[in-house]
Amino acid sequence: MKDEYYMKIALKLAQKGRGYVSPNPLVGAVIVKEERIIGRGYHQHYGGNHAEINALKNASEDACGSTLYVTLEPCCHEGKTPPCIDSITKHKIARVIIGSIDPNPIVSCRGISNLQSCGIDVKTGVLEPECRKLNEVFFLFMEKKLPFVTIKYAQTLDGRIATATGQSKWISSAASLKFTHKLRAQHDAILVGAGTVIKDNPELTVRLVRGRNPLRIIVDSALKIPAKSKVLQNLSQNKTIIATIKKASDPQFQRLTNLGAEVITVVADKQGNVDLKKLLKILAQKNISSLLIEGGAQIITSILMNNLANRMVTVIAPKIIGKGIEAVGDLKIRNLDSAKKLSIRKITRSGDDIIIDSRLS
Amino acid sequence: MKDEYYMKIALKLAQKGRGYVSPNPLVGAVIVKEERIIGRGYHQHYGGNHAEINALKNASEDACGSTLYVTLEPCCHEGKTPPCIDSITKHKIARVIIGSIDPNPIVSCRGISNLQSCGIDVKTGVLEPECRKLNEVFFLFMEKKLPFVTIKYAQTLDGRIATATGQSKWISSAASLKFTHKLRAQHDAILVGAGTVIKDNPELTVRLVRGRNPLRIIVDSALKIPAKSKVLQNLSQNKTIIATIKKASDPQFQRLTNLGAEVITVVADKQGNVDLKKLLKILAQKNISSLLIEGGAQIITSILMNNLANRMVTVIAPKIIGKGIEAVGDLKIRNLDSAKKLSIRKITRSGDDIIIDSRLS
Repeated sequence: MKDEYYMKIALKLAQKGRGYVSPNPLVGAVIVKEERIIGRGYHQHYGGNHAEINALKNASEDACGSTLYVTLEPCCHEGKTPPCIDSITKHKIARVIIGSIDPNPIVSCRGISNLQSCGIDVKTGVLEPECRKLNEVFFLFMEKKLPFVTIKYAQTLDGRIATATGQSKWISSAASLKFTHKLRAQHDAILVGAGTVIKDNPELTVRLVRGRNPLRIIVDSALKIPAKSKVLQNLSQNKTIIATIKKASDPQFQRLTNLGAEVITVVADKQGNVDLKKLLKILAQKNISSLLIEGGAQIITSILMNNLANRMVTVIAPKIIGKGIEAVGDLKIRNLDSAKKLSIRKITRSGDDIIIDSRLS
Repeated sequence: MKDEYYMKIALKLAQKGRGYVSPNPLVGAVIVKEERIIGRGYHQHYGGNHAEINALKNASEDACGSTLYVTLEPCCHEGKTPPCIDSITKHKIARVIIGSIDPNPIVSCRGISNLQSCGIDVKTGVLEPECRKLNEVFFLFMEKKLPFVTIKYAQTLDGRIATATGQSKWISSAASLKFTHKLRAQHDAILVGAGTVIKDNPELTVRLVRGRNPLRIIVDSALKIPAKSKVLQNLSQNKTIIATIKKASDPQFQRLTNLGAEVITVVADKQGNVDLKKLLKILAQKNISSLLIEGGAQIITSILMNNLANRMVTVIAPKIIGKGIEAVGDLKIRNLDSAKKLSIRKITRSGDDIIIDSRLS
């Protein structure tokens, strides 16, 4: 109970790094001595001190003999910063309580054994589900070598993302648009299909809130997006990757490369389009751990069909339009037992809209 | 402020009658003397005492000189019970504070003027929107001479009520099924199309919760539902009305009447189906003030198309099935500005599902 109490505080601290540490995990740490918290820390930004180090630095008194609570197994390797294990032993911490084991193969469990061999008492698995949930992106990325994929779209209450004539601006409220920008800032990259670029000509940047612009990825199997598309402007500032099945010898490939976009050739799937799983593997290799998919229906359907989605963020506008365009097309599901199951994580109001945040299981 | 405080208590009392007073309105009353509540009452069941009378009966001391707070204008006519005005004057109440004016043309404003002519101080409009909201069914029924129409259906998160092969059992959870039965018990009647009877053969009764069975209404323009349908069983206990465009001379009309159903002929609309607005007018004349529509898609679409719906209860199951059947068909809306707007009243969880309760404006 006491361990869980302190781990909860460490979890709350970890949250503060959200949006700044990716692709590193969120980590929080608390140092407790004689029932008093003497130090708190969290991983604040990518490349910065780890949570344990910050907690030690912030400690109000000598940490000798204290207990360190940390949401993720301390590292034992030299990365952008020295190994945390060294600081822990140097400060003569007596006990380390760990939430989740690091899935990073160069750390996993070695941190624990190193601590133990230094005579430090180690306990693991305290609030482990919560600690894993905190870093769901990081765990998936490390364990599957794929980006954590979030599908986001806005629909009417009757499930339409556009009218029968294709009108979709704006289904959702101004508040939800701002929410979308916030979501973008929390992701390493945004992906849309060429159809969305041609039809809506979005900028795919973060403008309505403060935050970094994610990398833009356009799936354009036939390389047909026009040169004047907004996603092809200011490429020196905001990078755009175009995924195609065309080879580098294709004149369109050359044209887009000359504009400053990065064009990558991906093998085709059975339908002759970019194989999305292959593309995601390539993106993971490029250190993209979280990917936001903003449409259109063809990409969303294909991602779901290939079981590549991890999270759905569905904005529901309190409107009814009847016959129109739906976000999810044919998944070949004919039996309700085969429906894709979601677990709802959070329901929030956004202006007049409802936002349902769920996970695919 | 003080008036609103006591009116809120009267509103809470009124709620207690929900499910028992229809087609009468919910009414609550509080008697206040020298800043103390000396009596509370509400309309408990159809045909029973009005709220004011119950508050006077329950009063712990002489109500002379006190203030009566009542959510709806007191009646001045002999109905199933004597006029409330008489009791109010007899008990020498000094002041009457009213929430909403009675829309019933035989009461409207006459209650107020009668009280005033008896020398009683009257104030109206205290928490009027809340008092009208409390009796939204009653107000609509009285003012428009139409039943208050609730459309209820269960859909997946991606907006489907059945798979492409028509499978719909069960989209939603057991908890939501129970919720549906509760909703049925709160309505005077349930309406479904013949297609739903033929496909799902529902009983349309209240079984999973305690409550009265609403009247069942089947829209069957061509009189094609089979005699073995569950809605045609036990007709002496649970009444069923079948609305058709066929005349009484039609052999099917005779067959269904002989089974014990009430068959009514309604004029046809342009498509040659039962004109739903005409049907609702007939149902209002039969004292049906609240109508629950449980499907199918054709009826739901037609009700929305004709602007006959007042409330939508949408059960959203955390599932994705892709291509399938949608609840709302073509409403001829091609422009988002013409979308039907809803105001969301309540969002609740029901098992794994989400229930969105909204009103059409």
